[in-house]
Amino acid sequence: MSDLYQPHSALELLRRFEGNVEARRHYLHERFERIREFDVQLRAMTALAELDATTQALDSVRGPLGGLPVAIKDIFDTHDLVTAYGSPIYADHRPASDAAIVTLLRRQGAVSIGKTATSEFAYMAPTPTRNPWALNCTAGGSSSGSAAAVAAGYAPFAIGSQTAGSTIRPASFCGVAGYKPTFGLLPTLGMKCFSWSFDTVGLFASCVRDVAHLAQALSGHRLAVSDLPGKPVFGLPDSYPWGSPSANAASVVDHAVHAIEAAGAVVTSVEFAPWMTEMTGAHATIQSYESFQSLGFEYDHRREQLTPMLRDFLNRAANVSTDAYIDACANAEAAKAALLTWFDGIDGLLTPSAPDEAPEGLTSTGDPAFSRNWTLLGAPCVSVPGLRGERGGPIGVQVIGRRGEDAATLALAAFVEETLKKA
Amino acid sequence: MSDLYQPHSALELLRRFEGNVEARRHYLHERFERIREFDVQLRAMTALAELDATTQALDSVRGPLGGLPVAIKDIFDTHDLVTAYGSPIYADHRPASDAAIVTLLRRQGAVSIGKTATSEFAYMAPTPTRNPWALNCTAGGSSSGSAAAVAAGYAPFAIGSQTAGSTIRPASFCGVAGYKPTFGLLPTLGMKCFSWSFDTVGLFASCVRDVAHLAQALSGHRLAVSDLPGKPVFGLPDSYPWGSPSANAASVVDHAVHAIEAAGAVVTSVEFAPWMTEMTGAHATIQSYESFQSLGFEYDHRREQLTPMLRDFLNRAANVSTDAYIDACANAEAAKAALLTWFDGIDGLLTPSAPDEAPEGLTSTGDPAFSRNWTLLGAPCVSVPGLRGERGGPIGVQVIGRRGEDAATLALAAFVEETLKKA
Repeated sequence: MSDLYQPHSALELLRRFEGNVEARRHYLHERFERIREFDVQLRAMTALAELDATTQALDSVRGPLGGLPVAIKDIFDTHDLVTAYGSPIYADHRPASDAAIVTLLRRQGAVSIGKTATSEFAYMAPTPTRNPWALNCTAGGSSSGSAAAVAAGYAPFAIGSQTAGSTIRPASFCGVAGYKPTFGLLPTLGMKCFSWSFDTVGLFASCVRDVAHLAQALSGHRLAVSDLPGKPVFGLPDSYPWGSPSANAASVVDHAVHAIEAAGAVVTSVEFAPWMTEMTGAHATIQSYESFQSLGFEYDHRREQLTPMLRDFLNRAANVSTDAYIDACANAEAAKAALLTWFDGIDGLLTPSAPDEAPEGLTSTGDPAFSRNWTLLGAPCVSVPGLRGERGGPIGVQVIGRRGEDAATLALAAFVEETLKKA
Repeated sequence: MSDLYQPHSALELLRRFEGNVEARRHYLHERFERIREFDVQLRAMTALAELDATTQALDSVRGPLGGLPVAIKDIFDTHDLVTAYGSPIYADHRPASDAAIVTLLRRQGAVSIGKTATSEFAYMAPTPTRNPWALNCTAGGSSSGSAAAVAAGYAPFAIGSQTAGSTIRPASFCGVAGYKPTFGLLPTLGMKCFSWSFDTVGLFASCVRDVAHLAQALSGHRLAVSDLPGKPVFGLPDSYPWGSPSANAASVVDHAVHAIEAAGAVVTSVEFAPWMTEMTGAHATIQSYESFQSLGFEYDHRREQLTPMLRDFLNRAANVSTDAYIDACANAEAAKAALLTWFDGIDGLLTPSAPDEAPEGLTSTGDPAFSRNWTLLGAPCVSVPGLRGERGGPIGVQVIGRRGEDAATLALAAFVEETLKKA
């Protein structure tokens, strides 16, 4: 285990800082030192705030985020820091304003320490970010830098995004809590769009209670973790239409199942409806059609500056017809409605967060298969940290809830997390 | 009547230009001359494209928009022209990329002649734009310049937007066709956001068939006007929860009713459900809550550069609670579902487009009352031109259809328009 792996609990820090301006100032300064010391190696950050300005900001902020540092995925506009969206096209781009989530962070009392590495336009091209737990492994993607920044203790909070599996997967690989809210819960305004039907703001923190606190502060919804009303009932899928998890990931889920059953949870086997299989294709169709418009300027005017991976994807996307898109959208809407009743009888699903631990090497960000359909369906997903795979690296278990039931989903995820800690 | 009032039919021009490159080049050059001659007075344009570059673009474009000039509301990003969103905050702003609708226009063969005046962030502060029909009157707002540009023959097409009544109202005042599609039909990406639940791309042209052609080219949906399948049934509201139209507007609607009845249409009196009254408040709540986030950067960092009108609006918006917002969104969703069945038995509604002809003076853009709820409900609306009020100015009648039934709504609107022409 690398000594770079040091996630810090936000709620603990908030308790420590209460009434102690000096302590939070000291903590902030230490974050900058840590980044300066380690990020040459880790490559999680793409731009760093100025220490003096950040310290000044710290002294004036008010709100439930209590002056805690936050790192922001470089897919969100910031008027005071270069915002490159992971692309050389925008290497020197300074947006004229801030993304809405950046405004909300500041209004709620967080201070930005800088921007984190993202795959090119939050698609699949790998970033140079290393996994703080094992430097020879990917941190996942596309929110590579945000997951790594929290895992490495650069900041107790980070903002990411998810269009397929860009929050849940890196959270799983880096051993931190990742939360993809119900579609639309947090504003995507000022986030570089890939697919407007799917783009979702994702949140990272050291643990589920932390991420729920952040989500409550930003959304205004009551999401802070509360006690479960009774014995929770988890659905455990008997198989996955998008392929099986590795034996490694399956055994981690088994371990979690035994632990939560021992703690009083009911775990019941569930089968996906046939439409679940089709949703993977619907995701591809909708994402392709929309990205050919949302990245239309870059494709039409700056094509030679796109990676071959993204250029090839957009070349194919150009061939998706409006009729195919309309059909896929209609099928997705029907599936979203059907999913609400499919959840009857269970409180949430328990699945792997990703097919395996973080793959070795930096040539791929891993496979979003276990997230893609949930993003399409708009359902809240939490990657719960705390478990290790057979190679010793972090591996998350995912709790998925009913669309709109984010508070219940976070409470379930916290139950899993705390049960695993005690087990 | 001012000689500035000269809308040009796009479909006619397309026929004229077929196989005649010189004619369309000549037409383009004439547009620039016209703008240079009249816009000192009219103030519809905020930025003009370069003639040489535009002529070059014209020679390379392909697609159903056939090299027709288009004017673009200055709420949409353009990488090659200043985009100020109607605010001094962005007086020199050159976006790094184009809005998706700009990409689509070019891909479908239109050429941009420049940007048109918008109210500050598409809210209510009046622009200096004059009404081409009567220079002492407002052109409406917030898409003031786009409606005026089409009315004055600067371009056969213009792009606008609508969050309350920003397309339908100026179309009515300027005597051109205005079309607010079903929510989500056209991408708002790269449009300065006011309220993401309502912001809709609006289209302007000289007549309904033109605007339907433009909408089909941009959306890929089959929207070009086709014959009605049978005798159309129009609902005529017996009263409006947002207030009565002027006697002037009411008599114009009466005139339209008599004409379409004579042409074989059935017009039946309809009553709004009680929830329709509440939707005006829901619109205010949702628009306020979202704009306090979407204009959060400007409110927090550039407040002194906002007009008092917008600043006061945002001061009040700051007090809208998340709970009130969640309630309003839930009520709006329920109303959207209820509206689909409320339309049973009628093909569309016929209402005034605005409470009256364009008001005199440039101190107000007029009242969006007859549009606001339909924007909230996501329903397609068309302002049909061709009628005059008692003061001699244009005044539109509005055809409203079921959400998602844009082709049928445009066909109904074309029926009204063509009936009025013959009457």
